[in-house]
Amino acid sequence: MSQLVRYGMVGGDEGAFIGKVHRRAIGFDERIQLVAGCFSASSQEKNKKTGQVLRLDPARVYDTYQDMAREEGKREDGIDFVSIVTPNVTHFDIAKTFLENGIHVMCEKPLTFTVEQAEELAHLAQQKNLLFGVNYSYTGYVLAKVMREMVAEGKIGKVISVNAEYPQEWLLDDLHPVEGQELSLSVWRKNPEIAGISNCVGDIGSHIENFVHYITGLKIKRLLATVNRFGQPLDLNANILVEYDNGANGAYWCSQVAAGTLNALAVRIYGDEGSLEWQQENPDYVRYTPRGEAPRTLTRGNGYLKEKAAAFSQLPTGHPEGLHVAFGNLYQQFASAVIAHREGQPTDGFDFPRVQDGVNGVKFIHAVINSAKNDSAWVHIN
Amino acid sequence: MSQLVRYGMVGGDEGAFIGKVHRRAIGFDERIQLVAGCFSASSQEKNKKTGQVLRLDPARVYDTYQDMAREEGKREDGIDFVSIVTPNVTHFDIAKTFLENGIHVMCEKPLTFTVEQAEELAHLAQQKNLLFGVNYSYTGYVLAKVMREMVAEGKIGKVISVNAEYPQEWLLDDLHPVEGQELSLSVWRKNPEIAGISNCVGDIGSHIENFVHYITGLKIKRLLATVNRFGQPLDLNANILVEYDNGANGAYWCSQVAAGTLNALAVRIYGDEGSLEWQQENPDYVRYTPRGEAPRTLTRGNGYLKEKAAAFSQLPTGHPEGLHVAFGNLYQQFASAVIAHREGQPTDGFDFPRVQDGVNGVKFIHAVINSAKNDSAWVHIN
Amino acid sequence: MSQLVRYGMVGGDEGAFIGKVHRRAIGFDERIQLVAGCFSASSQEKNKKTGQVLRLDPARVYDTYQDMAREEGKREDGIDFVSIVTPNVTHFDIAKTFLENGIHVMCEKPLTFTVEQAEELAHLAQQKNLLFGVNYSYTGYVLAKVMREMVAEGKIGKVISVNAEYPQEWLLDDLHPVEGQELSLSVWRKNPEIAGISNCVGDIGSHIENFVHYITGLKIKRLLATVNRFGQPLDLNANILVEYDNGANGAYWCSQVAAGTLNALAVRIYGDEGSLEWQQENPDYVRYTPRGEAPRTLTRGNGYLKEKAAAFSQLPTGHPEGLHVAFGNLYQQFASAVIAHREGQPTDGFDFPRVQDGVNGVKFIHAVINSAKNDSAWVHIN
Amino acid sequence: MSQLVRYGMVGGDEGAFIGKVHRRAIGFDERIQLVAGCFSASSQEKNKKTGQVLRLDPARVYDTYQDMAREEGKREDGIDFVSIVTPNVTHFDIAKTFLENGIHVMCEKPLTFTVEQAEELAHLAQQKNLLFGVNYSYTGYVLAKVMREMVAEGKIGKVISVNAEYPQEWLLDDLHPVEGQELSLSVWRKNPEIAGISNCVGDIGSHIENFVHYITGLKIKRLLATVNRFGQPLDLNANILVEYDNGANGAYWCSQVAAGTLNALAVRIYGDEGSLEWQQENPDYVRYTPRGEAPRTLTRGNGYLKEKAAAFSQLPTGHPEGLHVAFGNLYQQFASAVIAHREGQPTDGFDFPRVQDGVNGVKFIHAVINSAKNDSAWVHIN
Repeated sequence: MSQLVRYGMVGGDEGAFIGKVHRRAIGFDERIQLVAGCFSASSQEKNKKTGQVLRLDPARVYDTYQDMAREEGKREDGIDFVSIVTPNVTHFDIAKTFLENGIHVMCEKPLTFTVEQAEELAHLAQQKNLLFGVNYSYTGYVLAKVMREMVAEGKIGKVISVNAEYPQEWLLDDLHPVEGQELSLSVWRKNPEIAGISNCVGDIGSHIENFVHYITGLKIKRLLATVNRFGQPLDLNANILVEYDNGANGAYWCSQVAAGTLNALAVRIYGDEGSLEWQQENPDYVRYTPRGEAPRTLTRGNGYLKEKAAAFSQLPTGHPEGLHVAFGNLYQQFASAVIAHREGQPTDGFDFPRVQDGVNGVKFIHAVINSAKNDSAWVHIN
Repeated sequence: MSQLVRYGMVGGDEGAFIGKVHRRAIGFDERIQLVAGCFSASSQEKNKKTGQVLRLDPARVYDTYQDMAREEGKREDGIDFVSIVTPNVTHFDIAKTFLENGIHVMCEKPLTFTVEQAEELAHLAQQKNLLFGVNYSYTGYVLAKVMREMVAEGKIGKVISVNAEYPQEWLLDDLHPVEGQELSLSVWRKNPEIAGISNCVGDIGSHIENFVHYITGLKIKRLLATVNRFGQPLDLNANILVEYDNGANGAYWCSQVAAGTLNALAVRIYGDEGSLEWQQENPDYVRYTPRGEAPRTLTRGNGYLKEKAAAFSQLPTGHPEGLHVAFGNLYQQFASAVIAHREGQPTDGFDFPRVQDGVNGVKFIHAVINSAKNDSAWVHIN
Repeated sequence: MSQLVRYGMVGGDEGAFIGKVHRRAIGFDERIQLVAGCFSASSQEKNKKTGQVLRLDPARVYDTYQDMAREEGKREDGIDFVSIVTPNVTHFDIAKTFLENGIHVMCEKPLTFTVEQAEELAHLAQQKNLLFGVNYSYTGYVLAKVMREMVAEGKIGKVISVNAEYPQEWLLDDLHPVEGQELSLSVWRKNPEIAGISNCVGDIGSHIENFVHYITGLKIKRLLATVNRFGQPLDLNANILVEYDNGANGAYWCSQVAAGTLNALAVRIYGDEGSLEWQQENPDYVRYTPRGEAPRTLTRGNGYLKEKAAAFSQLPTGHPEGLHVAFGNLYQQFASAVIAHREGQPTDGFDFPRVQDGVNGVKFIHAVINSAKNDSAWVHIN
Repeated sequence: MSQLVRYGMVGGDEGAFIGKVHRRAIGFDERIQLVAGCFSASSQEKNKKTGQVLRLDPARVYDTYQDMAREEGKREDGIDFVSIVTPNVTHFDIAKTFLENGIHVMCEKPLTFTVEQAEELAHLAQQKNLLFGVNYSYTGYVLAKVMREMVAEGKIGKVISVNAEYPQEWLLDDLHPVEGQELSLSVWRKNPEIAGISNCVGDIGSHIENFVHYITGLKIKRLLATVNRFGQPLDLNANILVEYDNGANGAYWCSQVAAGTLNALAVRIYGDEGSLEWQQENPDYVRYTPRGEAPRTLTRGNGYLKEKAAAFSQLPTGHPEGLHVAFGNLYQQFASAVIAHREGQPTDGFDFPRVQDGVNGVKFIHAVINSAKNDSAWVHIN
């Protein structure tokens, strides 16, 4: 029975949307079982009720995450890992507490408010020899893994230019405030005490940074940016030019006020031997153009997968997998790493975003905001 | 605790692909719990192992579906429904047995080999006052529900023409047999004793028939068809002209030998006030053209949903939901119907394919094959 | 100066749309010069004015096409060919008259009302050893020529299934007549004395027939059809099943009442070694899927053209060519055939639709209408 | 006969591609007639032969553009305007000469090498009261005109963000030099004495600048850029951030080494009330999203055109117009301005790019190159 992986959740009560998405995705891996939780910090009623619906042992539905970390850390059959799905401002304290109690952590992004906090978590995880995943979920798509392998194999040669973006439209109404009506959707994002130094770049710009790095392996050497607040306390739109460690340049754009866009993460990687193009809203397809040839549309069923990323594909090709599968693939790899860790095996080979990816994300966010404050001057990262 | 819905599964051992998809989709609804199973008819080892992985009580992992139906039918805490995910040839006997033991049934399609068998199941379910769902999974997509409501509200007026198709490419290699190499993928589909009267029309043509009916409410009055076997025992390609009960015509095409297509179900409904177009491989979008206006692209976030099909949407718009969500929506409605049935409430309003849809599917398949045998003469259905 | 080709036009006065399109397309070939015309049968004022605008010798702007054919037939420097762009009902008489005066003919489609008329023209052209082109303009697109060559080279193997359609929306308003308001756009198309036996099949259905034949070389052996008038005198919508001379089947659909479609001719050819897909509204691209490989998007710049249809390409790839280029390619080939004819060289190799294509189109139209009248019975063509 | 507009051409001998495109597009307007030319500076044989093919009076086929300007300037029936289609390095001298002889000018872009030259031409045209058009051809597309009107009418509100690009792939092979083989395609573009200060930004980046300005009316206040030469003498790739006079930002990208792109000019304009998206390779369509509504696909037939840009549409909607129509629309407006000028009417209202657009283009090119030289510092333009 050594294949069983037990987990607990912090946050994600019945009313919370994202907690349910995580649980469903985790449930794709039949080895993983939910056994504990602290689902709501503000309402014990919601907390208990959620535990009941999920058919948990009431003794393992905890009033505070501190109790949960301590008690589960002591149990023989305690949780192997915790999934943290709370608002950003709380990530640091919760993650730190579970690490201190010897429990692996999978945490939502952005990891922390400050670079120092992120680095402290990275240091602590290493010190304790614990696994720490960060939920950059889009890297779980099968075609993301295909692209990564193709770049690594040299299919597009040396990367010479990158164009990536993540526009949304959902905060456009905030530019048209109605007298006496609160800007309900977004109010917490405008409070730097809750949201941190950035709204748009923090929430979605950091996905661009992580995703491009995941596909290409490139590191950002320096960047410059323009950022637009449109009269709001935090950023709603940003254009970023980057210089990678291989000398190439790229351009990133993120926005929450772009009419006609939803979660339109789109990435185009140009190499001196070909190119790759991918869009999050149609994630089962990649447009691949080898130099001097016609573009071709790769999907999970075009043969390439047979040798490569097939293990991550959950449905027959032609049936769209969607975001739950991407989340699920992250947790499936994380669970496999937990089992390997338990058995004293190496865990480096498993494919999920690590705490260092979380650190890089926080560095990126700060660099963008700082460049914009300094009239778009270059800011060095690595 | 009256919200808990217990189920068992017949078929779907660890190695079986589709059983896992069903379990994952069912797991989207946290009210539903797997408590029993007979996962493999051919291997008790696989059967037991699957029960173990799924953490079931070993006493409720049964050697035969007959045992399972009888024992679960007797228990206080017996299963509310069975999910049947076995090969087609077995559907009739298994479904009948569970109905006879007073257990609701959710069954894969096509429902049965013969029209008579399908009608017997329909009759039995009605007699026993039991729920009987058939897994026409594509009707679970949110945008399918949106289209259905739009047609019902008159957004496209009276339907005057339908164009629908379901091409695939996966059997194309069978037209190029290699000496000494078995046509492994498709061999059972070519044996009429296992596959029934039809391969292509039965497997995917019937999805067209069901999906168009789901969206429009139209019934087929008569049809004619050409069918192509290309030297194989059963059909690989079919073109069908239909006449609906409202006098309009439609054209259907299904194929398993169309290079460049995967599960390319595509439906276009033309009314005298507008049109709707939808594709299974990109299921979160509908192209809607009102008469005399520009086409618009509807998705889960364009406002329409706020009033209507929003309850079925499982992710923020712009994040692709995929097939698991479609499956999940069917089971979620089925589970709600089970609870309503338990409480003596009406169950007609719940939105999942019924046994009558299964009957219609079998009638359609037979009509197509019979028309082709009779040099494409019209065959009346209803 | 033997490269100069002189032509005259019948129809196409200043107010007439299609005449101008022809003249522009002809003008793409700097060898061809307009020198005579009879631009309007109903108004000598329009006729003269058009000649003036086009800077013609007033003596060569004729009152009647009969005068024009006779006089130009006598001149040393008379026209080499006539372009006939009048309404359908007049094609037969005009074309016959020019042939009888020894002048090559390029005529709009559909060629004639009856099969007998079309065959008479074909016979006369042969007897007189004159060139006779029919303006099936879509065959002039560069990618149409690419597809034709690919099929001929065996790139998709043996054709096993065809799916082609030509829907439009422009007559949809006719299903919603407004009291006291004439159905101005379409009124002549509803008068069988002017429009002939068919409206929709004659106007656009025949393009499907011709285009599929052009690409594949297949001939239709027999067909059956449903046709819808929706209360109007002539057809507005038709579904057609065909059987080709190689045994394969195909399905055609044409409509003038399909909301959201403009001139949406779309052709998909499936072979046992691959497939080709093309759409008239985006004519510079072909989706080509070799068996067992990923689909690729061919255009005028993907290398294939270097060897093949490049001579027809008029713009650098990536710059859309549009319909004028397609028209122009037909006339460019026709002019080359005229020069070859003049020099006693063979003219068979030039690539433009011939009078036999016109005959086939008229046969197709009659077969569809006759099948529908006979409750969709098969009608043999060839 | 006052509607006749006579023109001559400098450059564009029979072998030259772009001259023929201009002549065809000009020929779309039956008021305009070619009467003179100096088609080749290097070969009198080619020059004469081209005049012969085009059926010109041999006396008006000139050995030098200086002769042509002087002689045509003196004739009663001399040319109204000259179309200059020579390499960039010659634009300034030729345009200046014709202006000095009182002849209107339509010139290819980029207008000149230096800002000073461009401003001198602008000054001279104003002084002489002559028309001066610059061939930014993409502004001639009907949908470009539709977008311009929509922005002017406030359909998308205030512009808040722009994302525009023009990638190509045609110089990618230059990154893979083959021993002993000249980089034939691009060799003159790498010689600053012929190509000027820039290759990629000058050739295609300037189209972005002009097109966005045409649609939005926005002026660039300042910009910064990264530019990549990849070891070549001039730029092959550039990323540019701009700040407009209304305070909004935009990002531009141009490249000649982006595999899988041809002439992929794409422009997305985001306003606080909606957005517009357009692509040059599919120019008959615009995606328009009003705030809070579903995106819609506008084309020449969706009603909007009835009131607005319909005069520029040359084909029934659904038939692709292509680049010749865009060119033709520019010349048609220029010819109308010539006639108005002749009659002493105002010429401001005609819709074609003016010499000031040419000046702005040269300023833009220099600013981009200068920013890149200065480590991406901001460079002010206006």
